[in-house]
Amino acid sequence: MISRTAAIAGIGATEFSKDSGRSELRLAVEAVRAALDDAGLRPADVSGLVTFSMDTSAEIAVGREVGAPSLRFLSRISYGGGAACAIVQQAVLAVAAGLADVVVCYRALNERSGRRFGQASTGGFADVDASWHVPMGLATPAAMVAMVARRYLHDYGATTDDFGRVTVAARRHAATNPAAWFHGRPITLEQHRASRWIAEPLRLLDCCQESDGAVALVVTSVERARDLPRPPAVVAAAAQGSGPGQYVMTSYYRDRIAALPEMGVVAAQLWEQSGLTPDDIRTAVLYDHFTPYVLMQLEELGFCGPGEARHLVAEGGIELGGRLPVNPHGGQLGEAYLHGMNGIAEAVRQIRGTSVNQVAGDGPVLVTAGTGVPTSGLVLERDL
Amino acid sequence: MISRTAAIAGIGATEFSKDSGRSELRLAVEAVRAALDDAGLRPADVSGLVTFSMDTSAEIAVGREVGAPSLRFLSRISYGGGAACAIVQQAVLAVAAGLADVVVCYRALNERSGRRFGQASTGGFADVDASWHVPMGLATPAAMVAMVARRYLHDYGATTDDFGRVTVAARRHAATNPAAWFHGRPITLEQHRASRWIAEPLRLLDCCQESDGAVALVVTSVERARDLPRPPAVVAAAAQGSGPGQYVMTSYYRDRIAALPEMGVVAAQLWEQSGLTPDDIRTAVLYDHFTPYVLMQLEELGFCGPGEARHLVAEGGIELGGRLPVNPHGGQLGEAYLHGMNGIAEAVRQIRGTSVNQVAGDGPVLVTAGTGVPTSGLVLERDL
Repeated sequence: MISRTAAIAGIGATEFSKDSGRSELRLAVEAVRAALDDAGLRPADVSGLVTFSMDTSAEIAVGREVGAPSLRFLSRISYGGGAACAIVQQAVLAVAAGLADVVVCYRALNERSGRRFGQASTGGFADVDASWHVPMGLATPAAMVAMVARRYLHDYGATTDDFGRVTVAARRHAATNPAAWFHGRPITLEQHRASRWIAEPLRLLDCCQESDGAVALVVTSVERARDLPRPPAVVAAAAQGSGPGQYVMTSYYRDRIAALPEMGVVAAQLWEQSGLTPDDIRTAVLYDHFTPYVLMQLEELGFCGPGEARHLVAEGGIELGGRLPVNPHGGQLGEAYLHGMNGIAEAVRQIRGTSVNQVAGDGPVLVTAGTGVPTSGLVLERDL
Repeated sequence: MISRTAAIAGIGATEFSKDSGRSELRLAVEAVRAALDDAGLRPADVSGLVTFSMDTSAEIAVGREVGAPSLRFLSRISYGGGAACAIVQQAVLAVAAGLADVVVCYRALNERSGRRFGQASTGGFADVDASWHVPMGLATPAAMVAMVARRYLHDYGATTDDFGRVTVAARRHAATNPAAWFHGRPITLEQHRASRWIAEPLRLLDCCQESDGAVALVVTSVERARDLPRPPAVVAAAAQGSGPGQYVMTSYYRDRIAALPEMGVVAAQLWEQSGLTPDDIRTAVLYDHFTPYVLMQLEELGFCGPGEARHLVAEGGIELGGRLPVNPHGGQLGEAYLHGMNGIAEAVRQIRGTSVNQVAGDGPVLVTAGTGVPTSGLVLERDL
C-alpha cells in the first residue's frame, strides 16, 4: 500500500572526513539544510524528522536549529546501520498516511573523531545478549563478523581473495568519486592480501573506514515531488526485517550461520511491494561495513545462489559495466562510513542520472542497510 | 487515512509495584504474553514490535523471548512518556500499510527499584539543551515543571489547591481500583496541603508515583480484530506533535510559558482525523506525571478555555459522574507510573465496558501521552 506513494526529493550531505571539527548536531543541521535546498523546499515546509536511535541529535533540536516551526512526526529506528532504509520507510509511512507533507531523514556522526564503533563494546542495550560473548573477548564488530566470515569460507570453499575483490571493486569506484575519502586511491588485490589481520579471516581492507559527516534525505509525496526541481526518486518498496534467532551482530545460534535471513525477510517484501525481480535491478547499493556481507547479501537478495556470489564478483559482475554494478560511489569501504545513508543518496543520484559513476540505463536501484543486525531495504525508481 | 483502520485488540500488564524483583526484559515479555493471551493470538502471529527509545529491552530480544519467529516492523519513539500514544500510531501505520498484521507495543520499567527518573539528570541526548539550566541547579523533572507551574498560577490567578484537587480526584479513582498502588487509600485536599514541597509550587502529592512494571498493547486491523475475542478498541485518531521552541521539559523560551502548544498540535490532528470534537468525548485519560499539566491539557485539548480548567476541576468535572471524568483508573498519580501505557490500557477497558470504574455511555475515549516534551494522543472508540 505504500509502494510508489512517496519519493526522495532532496539529498544533502556534509563533507566526509576523519575529523569534522564540529558537533554532530551541527553536522545534522548542515545536511538537513543542504537537502532542503536541493529539494527546493524551506525549513517551514518540514513537518517530520526521523533518525537512527543511535543518533545523538534530538529531532526537536535539529528542527529548532533548522527552523522548522512545529513537527507532527518524529521516530527512530534501532540497530545501528540497519536503520538506514527503515527511516526512509518511516518517512514514507508518514507521508502516505497524510500525517506529514515533508519528512526529513538525517544521520550525523563523528564516528572517527568521536565515538569509534570499531572499538570493543558491549553494544548498548544488547547487554544481556553481550554477556554470552564479551567475557570471552568477542567484543568488536570485526571479531563478531569474523565468526560468520570463517563459516562462509568453510561452507562454500571461498577464499579471502573473494573478500578482497569486493574491496578492490569498491575502491576502484571511489577512485573516480571526488566526494570519496579514497578518491584517486584505488587498490589492488595484492594490497588487500598484504593488509594486516584485524580479526582473521578479516583484513584491514575488509573493514570499512571510519568517518565523520552527515547525510539527510527529504521525503514527500510523489505528487508534490513532481513540482520540485529534482526528478523524484520514487520509493517503489521499503521494508524492514529481522530473522529467527536474531541478535545484534552475533546471531550464532541458527542452523545456518553463514546466512542473513533478516535480509531475506527484507528482500521478499521488496520484490512483493515493487512487483520487481532481481533481474530488473540496474545497480545495487549494498551495505559494506565488512566485505563478506556483500557476498552474502547478493545471495540473500536473489542475485545469485547461496555460495555463488564469489563467482559473480570474480567475473567483474559488481563493477561498473558488469552485470550488477554494486556501490558505484565506492561504498562505505571507499566513499565514507555514514551508516548507510550516503548509499541512499547515491541511489537517488543514480535515479536522477547525476552520479559521477553513472550506471547506464534507467532501471530501478536497490539499497540495503546494515547487515548482521535487523535490517532494511529500499527499491528506488524513476517516476514513470 | 489511518483513522479507523486499526484497533487495539489486546492489553496486558504485570503487577504494578515498587520492586518487581526481575529484569525489565522479563517484565516486557510477561506483559506481551499477557496482551497476546488477551487478544486470543499467539507469538507466531506477531510481525511487529514497537517501544519507547528509553526502553532497555531490544525489540528482537522481546521477540525472541516471546517466541515471535521473524519481524517486519520495529521502531521507537523518543521523549520519555511523550511516546506512549505515538507507539500506538506506529503500530497503526504498519498495520494500515500492510507491513505487519499484528504489532505489539510494549514498555517495561523498573522505575522505582532501578533508574528513578525523578532524580537529577542531564536528560540523555538533550545534553546541549541541558547545558543552559543544569549548571544553575535546575536538574530534576519536578524543578523543571515548577517553573511552568509557577507561571500558570501567576497568569491565571490559580492556587496550589487547584493542583491539589487534581490529585485528590486521581486518588479517589485509584481507591476503588484493585490494580492501583493506592487502592483503598484516597486522600483529602488537607493532606495535599500538608504534603512537603518538592519544588515549590509543587508538593509531593503533585508528583506522580514511581513504579515498576510493564504494559503491552496488541494492535491489528479492525477487520481482524472483529474475529478476536475482545471487542475492538478502534483507533479513530492517533497523532504526534512538537511545538515552536520545543525543548525536553524546559520550553521556557516561548512567548507563553504556561501553555502546551505541542499538545495543541496533537489535538488539532485528533479532532481532524476522528471528525469528533471535545464534546463527543466520554472520558479522558490525561498524562499526569505532575498535576499542573492536567489542567493545561484540559485547556489545550479544548475542553475549556485557557486558565479555566481549575473551575472544571473544582466543580467535580473530572471525577466519576462529572462532565468529563479524567483518569478513571487513578492515573499515574494513583494507579502506577508506567510512562502512560497503563492509561491506554484503561482507555481500552473503558471502550470494552470492563473498567472497575466504568464511565457511563459508549462514547469515545481520548488519551494523551507525556507533556512538557514532544507528545502524542489517541482517540479510541467502539466498533460502530
